[in-house]
Amino acid sequence: MKNFRFLVSYDGTKYDGWQRQGNTDRTIQGKIEAVLYRLFDVSVETHGSGRTDAGVHARGQVANFWVEESVVEKALAKLHRSRESRGNAWQCAQIQSYLNEYLPEDICVRELTVVPERFHSRLSAVGKTYCYRIHTSLLKPVFDRKYVWWLPETLDVDAMRQAAGLLVGTHDFMSFCGNPKMKKSTVRTINKLEILEDDQGLTIRAHGDGFLQNMVRILTGTLVEVGRGNVVPQAITEILVARKRAAAGPMAPAQGLCLESVDYLQGKGDLL
Amino acid sequence: MKNFRFLVSYDGTKYDGWQRQGNTDRTIQGKIEAVLYRLFDVSVETHGSGRTDAGVHARGQVANFWVEESVVEKALAKLHRSRESRGNAWQCAQIQSYLNEYLPEDICVRELTVVPERFHSRLSAVGKTYCYRIHTSLLKPVFDRKYVWWLPETLDVDAMRQAAGLLVGTHDFMSFCGNPKMKKSTVRTINKLEILEDDQGLTIRAHGDGFLQNMVRILTGTLVEVGRGNVVPQAITEILVARKRAAAGPMAPAQGLCLESVDYLQGKGDLL
Repeated sequence: MKNFRFLVSYDGTKYDGWQRQGNTDRTIQGKIEAVLYRLFDVSVETHGSGRTDAGVHARGQVANFWVEESVVEKALAKLHRSRESRGNAWQCAQIQSYLNEYLPEDICVRELTVVPERFHSRLSAVGKTYCYRIHTSLLKPVFDRKYVWWLPETLDVDAMRQAAGLLVGTHDFMSFCGNPKMKKSTVRTINKLEILEDDQGLTIRAHGDGFLQNMVRILTGTLVEVGRGNVVPQAITEILVARKRAAAGPMAPAQGLCLESVDYLQGKGDLL
Repeated sequence: MKNFRFLVSYDGTKYDGWQRQGNTDRTIQGKIEAVLYRLFDVSVETHGSGRTDAGVHARGQVANFWVEESVVEKALAKLHRSRESRGNAWQCAQIQSYLNEYLPEDICVRELTVVPERFHSRLSAVGKTYCYRIHTSLLKPVFDRKYVWWLPETLDVDAMRQAAGLLVGTHDFMSFCGNPKMKKSTVRTINKLEILEDDQGLTIRAHGDGFLQNMVRILTGTLVEVGRGNVVPQAITEILVARKRAAAGPMAPAQGLCLESVDYLQGKGDLL
């Protein structure tokens, strides 16, 4: 089996998220698998580093798929009307270019490489970076409107930073988990939670070993409540201890969120 | 009569350009006038600094409208259920906020002020800046796709800059005019024609006293032909002398173009 890993950007506006769903398929994974089926003439399952919610974007989602070497050779030979067998780099370039040709304009495969068979986009991932963009200007964001949460308010960024400081570290984030039936551990480590300001608003940049369902959006919604003065920064500690979704703030809308990148250990599967 | 001037940004993707057209009105001017009619209960004509083509964007289009003082007072009194008459700044804030509330999400009035009665957005304009954005990266521009011309090619930027240098100055730009029936003078002055590079592509930034119909898009299409090596930079001189549309290059697509700003002389009508 050959294992292909790819880096993909998408504008999630029109989609029901990353994960394939039944028949009426408006998902990123579904779109990609449909093109792979067209190319290989067999069903190929892709594995993303994680799901992204409906409406959430990605600049650096990572996914992989396994496919028989003979299937790849056959498909590419057919495509090029030649039986000549060439190297991995050539195969990758062909598959990437085929995907980008048939994928819609809001999905782009940025890189595609052959990786060791044991590499798995989700299981091998060791970290993720998400950015949440808030446009605080009083004026409507005409050009960025699909990629920001427009909140024409003055937020207390110092208070938000104080609260963010209390969220950094290894905690049980059950209060920030959108799935009430979560059975597995809700303990996660946030390494960094920055709030970056610019002239149009602010960006919440979160880096951690992994994030629970809706976690970044609930973190954002809670930090906004702190920024509004509705919640004191110190309350974060109690919110964490409560281990109840109701203790945290509301969930920020999907459109402001973007999966920026996924980290893998060098030599542990990401490179051939 | 009171004269209101406003600065407006719009994403032109969904529109048939700035200028109002008959009944099936999908124009920026039409949308704005519909909201003004809703506010004032009388038809108010807006005057833009110039038309923008279908699909062209603006960050800094300028327009103005004249309206009877009594109409403004009546409309705002009704809106606030009070007969209290307040100053210009208050009136402007009310009108701007009303416009932004009822305009669609892709049109935003950034400023609105009272100006001397003689001020006219088109007739008083002394200069304009347009930017044309070309994405030359091989990868699809997922997030900017509606604001760039995607041209995954290597362009000779030095040659383009040489050609741009020959376009700067006062010339008869008939070869770059999209209107074959143009009766008025086609002489214009380009003060600056810069080509700015970044990691995703390049931006052609043009400043001049005014531009003919489609002129920036034809200038761009011609510069791209130079960048591709299909036209030598020196040919610009002959293209100008020819005074024939066919002598210049093709017209670049609308979506890469944006009207950045319009200049007015200080004290000659832009400030009260």
